[in-house]
Amino acid sequence: MPRGARYRGGMSTARARFYSVIPAGGIGSRLWPLSRADAPKFLHDLTGSGVTLLRATWDRLTPLAGEQRIMVVTGRAHRAAVEKQLPEIGDENIVLEADPRESTVAVCLAAAILRKREPDVIIGSFAADHVIRGDRLFRQAVSHAIEAADAGYIATIGIRPTEPAIGFGYIKSGAPLDIDGAESVLTVDSFVEKPDIERAKKYVADGGYLWNAGMFISRADVLLEELGRNEPQLRDAILELADAWDDPATRGPAVDRLWPTLKKVAIDYSVAEPAAAQGRMAVVPGYFSWDDVGDFASLAKLNSHGRPSDLAILGENARVLADSSSGIVVSHSKRVISLIGVKNIVVVDTPDALLVTTSENAQRVKGVVDALKISGRDDVL
Amino acid sequence: MPRGARYRGGMSTARARFYSVIPAGGIGSRLWPLSRADAPKFLHDLTGSGVTLLRATWDRLTPLAGEQRIMVVTGRAHRAAVEKQLPEIGDENIVLEADPRESTVAVCLAAAILRKREPDVIIGSFAADHVIRGDRLFRQAVSHAIEAADAGYIATIGIRPTEPAIGFGYIKSGAPLDIDGAESVLTVDSFVEKPDIERAKKYVADGGYLWNAGMFISRADVLLEELGRNEPQLRDAILELADAWDDPATRGPAVDRLWPTLKKVAIDYSVAEPAAAQGRMAVVPGYFSWDDVGDFASLAKLNSHGRPSDLAILGENARVLADSSSGIVVSHSKRVISLIGVKNIVVVDTPDALLVTTSENAQRVKGVVDALKISGRDDVL
Repeated sequence: MPRGARYRGGMSTARARFYSVIPAGGIGSRLWPLSRADAPKFLHDLTGSGVTLLRATWDRLTPLAGEQRIMVVTGRAHRAAVEKQLPEIGDENIVLEADPRESTVAVCLAAAILRKREPDVIIGSFAADHVIRGDRLFRQAVSHAIEAADAGYIATIGIRPTEPAIGFGYIKSGAPLDIDGAESVLTVDSFVEKPDIERAKKYVADGGYLWNAGMFISRADVLLEELGRNEPQLRDAILELADAWDDPATRGPAVDRLWPTLKKVAIDYSVAEPAAAQGRMAVVPGYFSWDDVGDFASLAKLNSHGRPSDLAILGENARVLADSSSGIVVSHSKRVISLIGVKNIVVVDTPDALLVTTSENAQRVKGVVDALKISGRDDVL
Repeated sequence: MPRGARYRGGMSTARARFYSVIPAGGIGSRLWPLSRADAPKFLHDLTGSGVTLLRATWDRLTPLAGEQRIMVVTGRAHRAAVEKQLPEIGDENIVLEADPRESTVAVCLAAAILRKREPDVIIGSFAADHVIRGDRLFRQAVSHAIEAADAGYIATIGIRPTEPAIGFGYIKSGAPLDIDGAESVLTVDSFVEKPDIERAKKYVADGGYLWNAGMFISRADVLLEELGRNEPQLRDAILELADAWDDPATRGPAVDRLWPTLKKVAIDYSVAEPAAAQGRMAVVPGYFSWDDVGDFASLAKLNSHGRPSDLAILGENARVLADSSSGIVVSHSKRVISLIGVKNIVVVDTPDALLVTTSENAQRVKGVVDALKISGRDDVL
């Protein structure tokens, strides 16, 4: 679409230029043995909704700009699984990574490819493996973020905290930006690392702090300019890749040559934090419910409907018999599972691996994955 | 062997008349899902010794009177499994129960069949599913019990308590019996039900209390006479069955006619307690280590070598990865099992059923079996 066209259908010009990007990369090691190299977190239904997180993300985004304007960035190994989940997706909307290179490459390569196709494109990047409830409120927040992006900001959506969570990073918001049609948009004062519980309580009491959900909405050119300021070499390599991308004759050689050189860095460090320091980040407070489902404690909470005394059960045709037990059971085998007198338990039952732990130890699951790697038991990773 | 012959080889006449009986009946519901209707406790290796409890019992008994003088009483469904475990056993030494009828029938029917064959036989009955360490001390105790049996007593072996256990019944011992060649034998004052912890502590401090291991050594005729005093109808039916047993033409009809009438009663009530009240029971203190492995707490203890902080692992080629965990894992599937931060845990992993509980709840496992029965999930029982 040529620059300068101000409307598409009844949408604002900004909204008409919007394109979603779904980085579908991380395995989700803290959810082992549910999540595996060949069955990463985004390919699971973690809420009992009947659809995978990836599919739910897609369904949440299609009303924004249609199913032709969503790009998925994923590993080569996951191509078939992604296409199975998203049969509507066009070839031009799947970007396959030769190997994982962290979020900067995933998001900025998509931005660069799309900018080549549509110079004034506005991209919004949303993880494939988060759980959101309240899709209408989500899309409303995205709409406001698109307006902020159109005004030249790199926008993010910060989730209004419902409790002093210590598992998320926070965004300290600043003054209102007074953007037309997006009155809720604030400047980002700074990004704050995961706090301890005392600090988290202060953040919630303060009211100005929002959870960092890792969503970025920006004009592609603005995003790449910011990347160029902080990681010029990486930006150049990404632009070169993007130039070669849409021609089958040039993409392969470019990937072979450039991919191994791509720096692994989170977009928080390469773009968001430096941009915030320069006053170039905006944040839209989001009032929908959001969780990154970082570990089994989070998964248990998500599925126990706020009643910690409950036992959440996940898995089709689960055969669970529980007596005086709470926590979560994930049943991916057909076995009868019996629990007696175990509180805050986490039982994850898959055909070739079993995990038994407690909510309190949920963060330590990653250590098991590391230990399995070291001991050469890759067959269950 | 004719009555009156005083020696066989170099053994005492009593020892030469000895015959072991192994009732192999109970499923061991508190060890579900390890123990099943088709894989009862006695068919498992619960100590990592490499042999089943039944085979270990057999091996412990053969030195007493040879492998020709051990009779196994088991259910029809277990015949093949028993023969596989004990390929040496002769057909005449397997007594198949039409359906389970409790310990009185198992032990007294064997006694009656053997008495028909050898009127002066002394039988010793030993459960197929207990764990004993110290076979030499065990056989020494049995030898003394045989002498007491020869003197007309119904003898038992009481285990010297090593702690105030509340899971076992106790035997209150009385005065020495002054039996030649068996100086350790005492009268039984009474049998005492499973005590609470305070009472158990008193028993241990007292020194005169022994654990009731359910072993009975007696002349067959004395045993049947005692049974006749307390359960005359049952004794008569058992004698009639025994009369018909060794003739293929008569056994079947007798079983069909009499088996359904057989009263289900523990031998403790039909024989041992009444005999004790009449001063006809003797007890040999046993100094070997013994456990009836009644539940997973007991199994954990048995396999953790006395270190409660340890994690016991049972199962061939178990693939267990544990971090800060204690208790027991029984691995009967080939899956990788990972435990993180779970204390006193009980994890029993079989191909079609999984149990997760704690040592404290071990006694409640039977309730799960009952619940599975009620809910019609017999496929995993």
